[in-house]
This record gives sequence, C-alpha cells and structure tokens, in this order.
Amino acid sequence: MAIDTVAPSPSLRPGGLPPVDLGPAAALSCRECGTRFPLGPNFACLECFGPLEIAYEFGSERAEELRKRIESGPASIWRYAPLLPVPADVASKPNLNPGWTPLVKADNLGRELGFTAQLHVKDDSGNPTHSFKDRVVACAIEAARAFGYTTLSCSSTGNLAGAVGAAAARAGFRSCVFIPHDLEQGKVVMAGVYGGELVGIEGNYDDVNRFCSELIGDPAGEGWGFVNVNLRPYYGEGSKTLAYEICEQLGWRLPEQIVIPIASGSQLTKIDKGLQELIKLGLVEDRPYRIFGAQAAGCSPVSAAFKAGRDVIKPVKPDTIAKSLAIGNPADGPYVLDIARRTGGAVEDVTDAEVVAAIRLLARTEGVFAETAGGVTVGVLKKLVETGQLDPAKETVAINTGDGLKTLDAVSGAGMTAVISPTLDSFRAAGLASA
Amino acid sequence: MAIDTVAPSPSLRPGGLPPVDLGPAAALSCRECGTRFPLGPNFACLECFGPLEIAYEFGSERAEELRKRIESGPASIWRYAPLLPVPADVASKPNLNPGWTPLVKADNLGRELGFTAQLHVKDDSGNPTHSFKDRVVACAIEAARAFGYTTLSCSSTGNLAGAVGAAAARAGFRSCVFIPHDLEQGKVVMAGVYGGELVGIEGNYDDVNRFCSELIGDPAGEGWGFVNVNLRPYYGEGSKTLAYEICEQLGWRLPEQIVIPIASGSQLTKIDKGLQELIKLGLVEDRPYRIFGAQAAGCSPVSAAFKAGRDVIKPVKPDTIAKSLAIGNPADGPYVLDIARRTGGAVEDVTDAEVVAAIRLLARTEGVFAETAGGVTVGVLKKLVETGQLDPAKETVAINTGDGLKTLDAVSGAGMTAVISPTLDSFRAAGLASA
Repeated sequence: MAIDTVAPSPSLRPGGLPPVDLGPAAALSCRECGTRFPLGPNFACLECFGPLEIAYEFGSERAEELRKRIESGPASIWRYAPLLPVPADVASKPNLNPGWTPLVKADNLGRELGFTAQLHVKDDSGNPTHSFKDRVVACAIEAARAFGYTTLSCSSTGNLAGAVGAAAARAGFRSCVFIPHDLEQGKVVMAGVYGGELVGIEGNYDDVNRFCSELIGDPAGEGWGFVNVNLRPYYGEGSKTLAYEICEQLGWRLPEQIVIPIASGSQLTKIDKGLQELIKLGLVEDRPYRIFGAQAAGCSPVSAAFKAGRDVIKPVKPDTIAKSLAIGNPADGPYVLDIARRTGGAVEDVTDAEVVAAIRLLARTEGVFAETAGGVTVGVLKKLVETGQLDPAKETVAINTGDGLKTLDAVSGAGMTAVISPTLDSFRAAGLASA
Repeated sequence: MAIDTVAPSPSLRPGGLPPVDLGPAAALSCRECGTRFPLGPNFACLECFGPLEIAYEFGSERAEELRKRIESGPASIWRYAPLLPVPADVASKPNLNPGWTPLVKADNLGRELGFTAQLHVKDDSGNPTHSFKDRVVACAIEAARAFGYTTLSCSSTGNLAGAVGAAAARAGFRSCVFIPHDLEQGKVVMAGVYGGELVGIEGNYDDVNRFCSELIGDPAGEGWGFVNVNLRPYYGEGSKTLAYEICEQLGWRLPEQIVIPIASGSQLTKIDKGLQELIKLGLVEDRPYRIFGAQAAGCSPVSAAFKAGRDVIKPVKPDTIAKSLAIGNPADGPYVLDIARRTGGAVEDVTDAEVVAAIRLLARTEGVFAETAGGVTVGVLKKLVETGQLDPAKETVAINTGDGLKTLDAVSGAGMTAVISPTLDSFRAAGLASA
C-alpha cells in the first residue's frame, strides 16, 4: 500500500552513484514544499530549505498479514523493518538491536494520580545504552552503511553520544561525537568508554549543534555521517518505532493520550507520524488520540508558545537539570505545536523541583528509575491531570526516554536512611526494628 | 516428568499453615543429606545444617510441547514458569518482568581474543535495574507473597539492593535493605531512590551478611522476608533462567563453554542446575559442557582453592574494585569447585587493572558497557584463552551480570578526548579533522 506517490526512479542517486537499498524508503520529501529528492545524505530542501523526511512506498500486503509478519519478527525495532528506511535483512547486520522495551502497567502511579483508566509507562531505559537514542542511531547507521560512511558523528546532550559510541563499536564504525563540556559525569564516561573520539565543546547544546553544521560543510568533516545532521531524515524515523511498539503492546490499539518529552521535538512528531502510518495501513483502528508535550520550565520555548497561542518559537537559553531536553531552539517546535493543537493535546512544563519529585514518585510507585527527562514527562503528566488538561478516565501512555543512573546528581538526596554498626543494638537504636 | 521423588504432601506447611502454590516446587531438600522439608521460609537443614534447595515435580508434558509452551510465553523469565518455584499465573502479578536479555554475538571480541568458534556475551545489564539480581528477586518475591511477608529485606553488595528496592515498589512491599557503608555512589542512589529503607553497615559485605543472619533470629526482624537468607532457596532458582535463556537463544542447544563470575558462587551452581534440568527434561541434547568461574584477584578464595587442588575455601578479606563480587567467604564455593572439576572447567582470577582493561575491551569491541563484575568475567575469559585453559575453537558464552553505569569510577579515565571552543580552527588545532 503506497502512502506517498513516489518519483519514478527513487533509488537512483545524484552523480551517477549506485542505487541504495533502504527497504520501503523511496525518496526524500520536503516537509514544507513537498519537493522530492533521491535518497541521499541530505537534510534540507534545495528549493525552500525546509526539512527533508522519508517518503515510503510500503508493500501491498494486507493488514492482517503484515501484523502477523511483525509479530513473528525479532524482539527489537527490526520487527518493524517493513516500515523503516532499512534493508529487509537489517537484523542480520551487527547492531545493538534496540527497542521492544517494556510497556509498564503503572497501576500504582495511576492510583496516586487519580487515574480511573489504565496508565502505562513506556520505559525506554530498557534499551542497550538505556535511552531511546538507540532506536534512532540504529536507523541512522543503516543509512550510513548505504551511503558508504565509515565515521559516525553527532552533536549530543549526552544520551546520543553514548548511543553513537556503542553502536559504532558494535557495527564497526569509527566515531567522533561532540557534547557540551559540562555534561553529567555518567553520560561523559558512558560516551567515552566505547573508545571513539569524544569532544567537549565550550558552550551549550545549541553551540555544539551550530558547530556541527559548520563542520559538515567543511573539509575537516569530509565523509562523516552526522547521525542528527546529514543523516537526520533516516535517524528521525527510528522514533516511529515507539508508536508502533506502544500500539502493538496494547494489542494493536491506539492509546487515547500520550505524553512525550520535547527536546528538538523530533520524537513527538515522529510518534505522530508512526500512529498515522498504522492507521493508514489498517494495522490499528482509527480513533481520536491526543498528544501532549513535556518540557522543563528552564527550557520551555514550545510550552511558552503553546500557552501564548503563538505559532513561532522564541529561542531561550536553557537553565535546567534536564540536560537531555535542554535545546533552546528546537527545530521541530512549530510541528509540535501543530500536533498538540490538532489532536486536542497540550504542551506543559514543570520546574526542576517538580522534576526531582516526579523521578522519586515514579521510582517509589513503579520501581522505574528515570533520568531527568523522564521526570519531566511524569511531572508534566501529574500537572496535566491536576489542571484538567489530561483526562484520567482515558487510557494514557507516558514515555520515559532514559535512565536515572545517567543523572544521579538530580536525586543525590536519595542515599542511605541510616548508617549503623553491625549489631542488633545499633539497629534498634536507629528505630528501624520490626517489633 | 519428575526429576526428584517428593514427599507425599509437599504443599502442607508446618504448624497447620495453609498450603502454598509455588507451581512445580514440591519440597525443600537438603543439598548435603537429602532430607526433605515442606515448602517454607527456611534455608538450613534441621538435620545437618546443610543448605536447602528446591525439589520439583515437573509436569509430564513431552519435551516438544514444553518447548512450544515456553516459546509462546512472555519475553521475560516467566516463559520458564513451569520450571520455577512460582505459581502458574505469575506473569499477571505486579513485578518487574526481568530476563530475556540479549545474547550478543560477540564477533569483534571473539576476533580479538582469537576465537575460531562463536563467542557470545549474555548481557544481563538489560534487566530492569540492570543486573542479573532482578531474576532472583522476582522469584523470591513470589515466595514472599506465598508466605505472607509484607517487608522485603536483604544484605547486598549493591546490585541486589536496587533490585529489591525496585521490585518491592512495583509489587507493593515495604523494603529495608542492608549494604556496606562504602559502596559505589551509583548503587547507593539507585537503591535509595525507590523509597524503601536503605541501611549502611560499618563493615564489609561479610559483616553485613552476618548481621542479617542475627537479625533474622531476633524479634527486630520478625516477619521480614530476607530474599537471600530465609527466602534463599527460592531466590537462588532465579539464576537457572540464565541457563534456560542461553540454551533457548542458541536454538535449544547447550553451549560448549560458559564463563560465570563468582560472588557467593550461587549463580554458577544454579546455572549448572538449570543445564542439567534441560537435559533431563529432554529440552536440549545431552553433550559435554565446561563451566569456568571468574574472580577478582583481590577476592579469589575459590580460584585459590581450585589452583591448589584444595576442597576447602579459605575465607579472605576482599580488596578489589569488583565490589559486587567481593564476598570473602562464599557459601557455595565448594560446590563451584565440584562443578568446575566435574565439567573440565577451571576457576581463574584477574587483577583490578585487568578488570578495567576488560571493561574497555568489551565496550570498544561490542558496545557493551559492563560493570566491574563483567570486567572480571571478560578479563578471565581472555586469560583462560591465553593460558590454554579454554578452547577458542569451541562455542563459548561469557556472562555480563551488571551495568557499567553503576561502577563509573572504575573507568573514570574514559572521559573526553579533547575540549575545544566551538570553531573549526579550534577543531583543526586539536588534530581531529578528517581531511
């Protein structure tokens, strides 16, 4: 079933380069003006500078057959290979096999927040490097293979650096990744341990990003695949798998409400894209769903625009403990606003204190230790219920995108209750005894 | 198919307590003298003080049917519920659903170590709290439910504390766990964040363990389920699932060699028990396998006994960065010696410097970031090959039991390659440019 009409020779590439096999990916298409380009390492429209995304030609398989094929596939994102810009034999190539993470029935949290319908937490800390970034990097790597790159690079707020370092090691790529110099120690060590180059940039993430955009046009970065710059259209598609998994784990059903953290906004827009594809392919029944975006108050340009009824995002200088969401000028912000408004959702933000409280709330109720970004999502979920913006009588999914072990400082207060000598008297004196 | 003969009324408990449903678990059985006891919160034989373990009465299902039932089960250890001391409906109870972690085809590592046969890494950092302890705790919790406990406790070198805290939160238990006061910060915060009591003991793990044994006989600890003391027979069985998963992931085949880290030695003995069960149940073909144990040189009482040809373990005072293996008086040490000798394996140890090098080797080659215990295993694997004790022409599995994010200090040297200002000139000056 073709969702998009495609150019006649989609796999031909400019300059007489050989055609690439990226499965159902048929062309690059400008999100703004719709102009089509052959598949290649490009991210901006030559006509209008709009962002490019993947246009697919999906097979003509019936929905029931496709569902069965997916269900018998591997316990990773590659079960959805027929819907991703990757070759059909992707699962046999060396890679981290991310995805198929738990959808946790969050009954305890739901009870505390006053839910009468089922609340779920999609816990993406279960990925190989413990964040959702493994999904997007796995897709970018297939594009890098197709385009002949041997070095992987990226700008990162931390999680992506680890994901690229690990995936490059497994898949046999060199890596050189760029991060703000003041990241959390856990993320720095995790990014560095895989043996690639790890470069700290004196500045914040937006500075790192700007630097990478310069580098990509310069001989110094010649021949490098920047997963979130020149491979971005392929990379972004990995986030669709969150939508696929949530629906399949619900028994091939759309959730009624989803709460998603916003950094660049890409994840949220791709989850919406994934849900739309499932509907168009007949894999789930069409019904309304509402998408909510979550930001930290210290970096809330999208939330601010949503609340003000503006279409334009005013960039901010981030100041929050949620560093993995600290993108002051989020590229997909306007699309996030569109989606939240179109689906009847909202964009909300919480303070750093609320983030910490939400990390501890989720840990205490569900045994899930989220990083600060997960705290933002759960904190916003709580606030959305309290302010009546989200309906606790509707089935809801909140996404935890990363692992608490990477942002330990946020909850450093969660240490020992007591320190005692190894005697019963000392134990009783600490007031901990049962009887 | 009954592997063990059972007492006539196995589910009847002493003192007229109601019978418990722990699936195929039929009785407790002394490992030393074979005396049987009804299922209860007991860990030592009343006749000879030997350790108690679970005796099963497995169903009479044919192997092919059982394999199919397992394969259609959940992607967690609960697919093996018919082989564990848990009720048949265990997967529907609130729990962390651990297990079914990746068996990584470690081609890059194998190449570096000179393997000609397939090398695999069973990566148990993929569990919910990122160590294999989630497996054993999940089994202990079902026993705790059966025996009516409402508080979970344990002595821990760190990983177990987090596993108990998280599992208790999800399953609705109170928790109070005991750790050495000088543990790695990551493990302390991870154990504390779930909101239970976390008590630091002035002493090492052996002191903590002794203290818990005292507490269990005292009114101060009345009514507490200590997962690794009075629930230990049930708890230990969780480690069998590592054997089950490895064989199923190999296509229902025994590996030829397995390398397993040794703390108390329980995991190694239970993996052997699991392999034996699979053979007896006809789920895998019987063929020889060799089991190797791995210790850190700074806590190597089992390795020392193996090398000296002794049957007796001489306790040591641990001094190693591999704190999760730092048990100076390992309870199952003698059984480990038996198994290594019986199967033609060995027990070996590596220095802390070799542990760090092995962590980086595994990360660099496979993108798997192991904690120090995983470094011990991979370091020992390397040493076993180099000394001709392990055959690189035989299919081998090495087990990574935990996550590098919990022992960051060990690889704190793995930081940034360079720190630069966000300009191309600064980048070129750092010597990182492509061209």
